[in-house]
Amino acid sequence: MPEQIPQDSIGLVTPQTLHFDQPLELECSTVLPGYTLIYETYGSLNEDASNAVLICHALSGNHHAAGYHSMEDKKPGWWDTAIGPGKTIDTNRFFVVVPNNLGGCNGSTGPTSTNPESGRPYGPDFPFVTVQDWVVSQARLADALGIHQWAAVVGGSLGGMQTLQWSITYPERLRHALIIAAAPKLTAQNIAFNEVARQAIRTDPEFHEGRYIEHNVLPERGLRLARMLGHITYLSDESMGAKFGRELREGHLNYDYGVEFQVESYLRYQADRFVGQFDANTYLLMTKALDYFDPAAAHGDNLSAALSRVSAQFCVLSFTSDWRFSPNRSREMVRALLDNDLKVSYAEITANQGHDAFLMKIPHYLNLFGSYMKRITVGGETS
Amino acid sequence: MPEQIPQDSIGLVTPQTLHFDQPLELECSTVLPGYTLIYETYGSLNEDASNAVLICHALSGNHHAAGYHSMEDKKPGWWDTAIGPGKTIDTNRFFVVVPNNLGGCNGSTGPTSTNPESGRPYGPDFPFVTVQDWVVSQARLADALGIHQWAAVVGGSLGGMQTLQWSITYPERLRHALIIAAAPKLTAQNIAFNEVARQAIRTDPEFHEGRYIEHNVLPERGLRLARMLGHITYLSDESMGAKFGRELREGHLNYDYGVEFQVESYLRYQADRFVGQFDANTYLLMTKALDYFDPAAAHGDNLSAALSRVSAQFCVLSFTSDWRFSPNRSREMVRALLDNDLKVSYAEITANQGHDAFLMKIPHYLNLFGSYMKRITVGGETS
Repeated sequence: MPEQIPQDSIGLVTPQTLHFDQPLELECSTVLPGYTLIYETYGSLNEDASNAVLICHALSGNHHAAGYHSMEDKKPGWWDTAIGPGKTIDTNRFFVVVPNNLGGCNGSTGPTSTNPESGRPYGPDFPFVTVQDWVVSQARLADALGIHQWAAVVGGSLGGMQTLQWSITYPERLRHALIIAAAPKLTAQNIAFNEVARQAIRTDPEFHEGRYIEHNVLPERGLRLARMLGHITYLSDESMGAKFGRELREGHLNYDYGVEFQVESYLRYQADRFVGQFDANTYLLMTKALDYFDPAAAHGDNLSAALSRVSAQFCVLSFTSDWRFSPNRSREMVRALLDNDLKVSYAEITANQGHDAFLMKIPHYLNLFGSYMKRITVGGETS
Repeated sequence: MPEQIPQDSIGLVTPQTLHFDQPLELECSTVLPGYTLIYETYGSLNEDASNAVLICHALSGNHHAAGYHSMEDKKPGWWDTAIGPGKTIDTNRFFVVVPNNLGGCNGSTGPTSTNPESGRPYGPDFPFVTVQDWVVSQARLADALGIHQWAAVVGGSLGGMQTLQWSITYPERLRHALIIAAAPKLTAQNIAFNEVARQAIRTDPEFHEGRYIEHNVLPERGLRLARMLGHITYLSDESMGAKFGRELREGHLNYDYGVEFQVESYLRYQADRFVGQFDANTYLLMTKALDYFDPAAAHGDNLSAALSRVSAQFCVLSFTSDWRFSPNRSREMVRALLDNDLKVSYAEITANQGHDAFLMKIPHYLNLFGSYMKRITVGGETS
């Protein structure tokens, strides 16, 4: 392995794509005639296909969760802290599959793809996708890969919602569900933040009703605002305080609208980075999928009833300083799972990093998470 | 009193204006050659001018705190719940003075005023104003009204910061300071929210570097976003949940970007209302004044040292669900006041309304607040 890639990394990885010709009827009733999923896999599928782990990504995530695409990459995949040989999700034991969600902008069919009906980019015509739609599309990917049952489905944030939905939609197709920093549905405040982000994008004059690609522009201002706002909700007041405090970039007040406090610099930097990488229509779709997720709704708002057919074993993890999806939201899920006499491990992890803690190298968290993964048995291993 | 105006209201009120010719050197070093303050007063100043109460307003507040401007007014002033005959701040006892802050957009000199040097609106040329500048300008108003010492200075949120600054700048000019739902300085998270609001306004193409009035337009999109975001931070997750939950406006999902959840409707309504009423440059200035406020900075970040010359008696109130300026922030002030052996009453009020609780008719809160006001002695009264 080349020396600039760390020893415990999965190393160089290559994304794969798979096209599905079978039409997919989405929850919004639109039928997608066909679609492509891009995904990465790490490790090897064992003989009885009992060691497959599905990773579901969050709002701005994608299929590149671990390793490097090239020797020039400065950063590995988004969950490299947790996925790799000997790591929390041990690629020496597990065959890890990470698709980019339908509606995404990193290679799976989404708003930036060409609409076969018009020959132009889908843009705003890409249909609304839901967590349930993603789960169905991921099940087809599992079929194609010869995976009848996942050893585990794992996800943080919006990824945790997909994990919960997997346990409801296909109870027999997963043995373990790991739900991290998630919630069984958004609160009014969560929806409100999403709505401000959407308004920022949609009122940007360069949005052009979603047809900005055809106008050769990007709704940069709106996407920047959405990302800045997102970042505030991903961090805790405490971690922002520890990271930036009230530190002044130039040591004194300038009485102008340039960057005065370090935290302003951080937000502007994050915003700038995001604009070149992420599609605004995808951002809109993802926030809508978050808003819509509510498996209890069809059961009179009774989450326990929604989980009555579930059979997986669960590991639910939350972080004390996460105010986007607070520990209380995880406890709601744990309570509903226990109502159904399901096996649940739950931990509330003391961490001041806020919602983003789920992506970070926090030893106590990764140890707990890793211990749970170790207890998952797979075929061909002697225990 | 006409029947549509409630019995306990101060009734019809008329704003007054006062022009100050004496130049004012601001903290940013700019000298304002002269300025006008608009203000309202309720009740009568007693013989020895010992019953005057100054009310300092918050970010989007103004001089119209109580009563009605005309019989057609649908709503009274912003703190009519607390100010009036027999109310918490009893206008039968106190002479209440409420100025609109310098830099405001409701009649005091600010960005929408004409710059005497250019004959055009100040717009972005209006200088940065700080909490300290406001206090100095308010002291001149007190001089003009013949008020040497306020019986009390009272303020919520940014108004509470002005109250704290009054006690530092003019220790001998106030007997009581009531600081409600405030903080001794902003956190990095508070600054981050302000920065997103500013970016929303400043990147609006109709902002025209702040000269939108001369272009006959308004940066409506930016101001709407700033207001929506503000509203999220004024309410608590709990109160938003209680008010809107996940209720759908039309009872079913539409899979579009119109209003689906009630909370979206609320935000859009608040944004629309604000745009016609508030000036974007003033909004920018007010958020900067918030960011800059930090009386401890000049004393090595030691708030106790910053308060060493203070002599007022204090009433500090906070609300359990206020996450913008949480009870912890009030406790910091209380601790620093106690370090200086000052008299302090402190209450943490159980209320689920978030930061906005300070404006609301919450009996427990208004009772506590009113009890404190009743204990303030004024000349000519027999106790």
